[in-house]
Amino acid sequence: MESHKIAALLEYDGTGFSGFQRQPGVRTVQREVEAAIARLAGGETGIHAASRTDAGVHARGQVISFWIRETVSPEVVVKAVNYYLPEDVAVKGACVIDKDFDVRRRATSRCYHYRIVSRRNRTPLDDRFNLVVHAGLDVPAMREAARLLQGTHDFASFATSLEESESTVRTVHEARVRQTEDSMELSIVANAFLRHQVRNTVGQLLRVGLGRCSVDGFSELLNRPRRGTAGPAAPARGLCLMQVQYQPALPFAS
Amino acid sequence: MESHKIAALLEYDGTGFSGFQRQPGVRTVQREVEAAIARLAGGETGIHAASRTDAGVHARGQVISFWIRETVSPEVVVKAVNYYLPEDVAVKGACVIDKDFDVRRRATSRCYHYRIVSRRNRTPLDDRFNLVVHAGLDVPAMREAARLLQGTHDFASFATSLEESESTVRTVHEARVRQTEDSMELSIVANAFLRHQVRNTVGQLLRVGLGRCSVDGFSELLNRPRRGTAGPAAPARGLCLMQVQYQPALPFAS
Repeated sequence: MESHKIAALLEYDGTGFSGFQRQPGVRTVQREVEAAIARLAGGETGIHAASRTDAGVHARGQVISFWIRETVSPEVVVKAVNYYLPEDVAVKGACVIDKDFDVRRRATSRCYHYRIVSRRNRTPLDDRFNLVVHAGLDVPAMREAARLLQGTHDFASFATSLEESESTVRTVHEARVRQTEDSMELSIVANAFLRHQVRNTVGQLLRVGLGRCSVDGFSELLNRPRRGTAGPAAPARGLCLMQVQYQPALPFAS
Repeated sequence: MESHKIAALLEYDGTGFSGFQRQPGVRTVQREVEAAIARLAGGETGIHAASRTDAGVHARGQVISFWIRETVSPEVVVKAVNYYLPEDVAVKGACVIDKDFDVRRRATSRCYHYRIVSRRNRTPLDDRFNLVVHAGLDVPAMREAARLLQGTHDFASFATSLEESESTVRTVHEARVRQTEDSMELSIVANAFLRHQVRNTVGQLLRVGLGRCSVDGFSELLNRPRRGTAGPAAPARGLCLMQVQYQPALPFAS
């Protein structure tokens, strides 16, 4: 039976998952999605992801790929896989891709958002998707520091000591701080990210916002790259993978 | 030891609770909050609530009252009770009230919001707090029907057959439909609500939006009140108790 390769757009609430990647004995997004596809495919199927999100990180636009028999259209994939998936993960669209299209390597950029609220107390209806900070933040300083991230830099300072990539040079296309009433959203787009780069960056920006690091100090981390000096990493709950971009865009249908 | 009476403002994510009210063998908001206060008070304490929300219903502004020794200030209540409470419920503020102040009877109005999104597929990051409707809705018709709710009416049609109140007459101060992109928020304020009244009302408004009931048919339910004829009740997940109002407002501090 002939097979075709499918790319699918995933949304998930990361709270109940030990991250994306399959690991023995724990609930991961990959395990749930592979199990759902297996029920549709009638046998085990592996998936590949554009980005491996950490435990607790959410996604509105994760992209995965897998093989399935040609008689299963993208529209049927969306309906059937959603039927088998648990409530905290869903397929939002799917399309057929070229057999050698690699959803990770072919991605031209990734966009992450990080949400922070400044409040005195916990707010259970919002805390699932935000970091709550009990102090005021110096937003103009955070904005100035964020601007420094833009461009091609050696981001070694924002990597973990476990980073496996040979090069720690990446290109940040956009790093913005948007402010509303009592909340703040950091938006960061790059060609690719080092492991924990976004959370370490947010952690360091928070230190700037709290007055524990100057904008000059932040700048130093970029100018003198040394592995794992930024941070500590901001908690996963505020982070969401918003979009993985391709040129041209993948024609997801639902 | 002298005691004083405290009113506290509660927020909770209703998803993990079998409603507000204590029931044997299940996890309820009342049970968790009473357990947290008991740890602070050093012994069992009962609480009273302004509104008993159903299983799965959220709250941003539930009001409760309880007695505690006078040496425990409202500020300490907020900090300490939050420390003992689980993640899905929190105290946002507290104040001392008169010893015969009844948070339920003295409330002048309650405000509930109900959120609906129209989408083809599930969206795990939003579904916790919204009803997802897979069809388009006739919003102008829903708005027209909602307007009919305003005023003093016999809401028997929107009650359940189990309603215990003698009178089913209530006064709706406001019933509005606000629309944004692909979502909708119904806002309803009344002096008091019958059991399941909001969810039955939303259920009936949805039937209007889906073309299964005309605005005239909706009007009939108000003009010829018969218990339990509206509905079916809309799911709890979209509903949130936003505010309980008092004249004058309670001076919650955090």
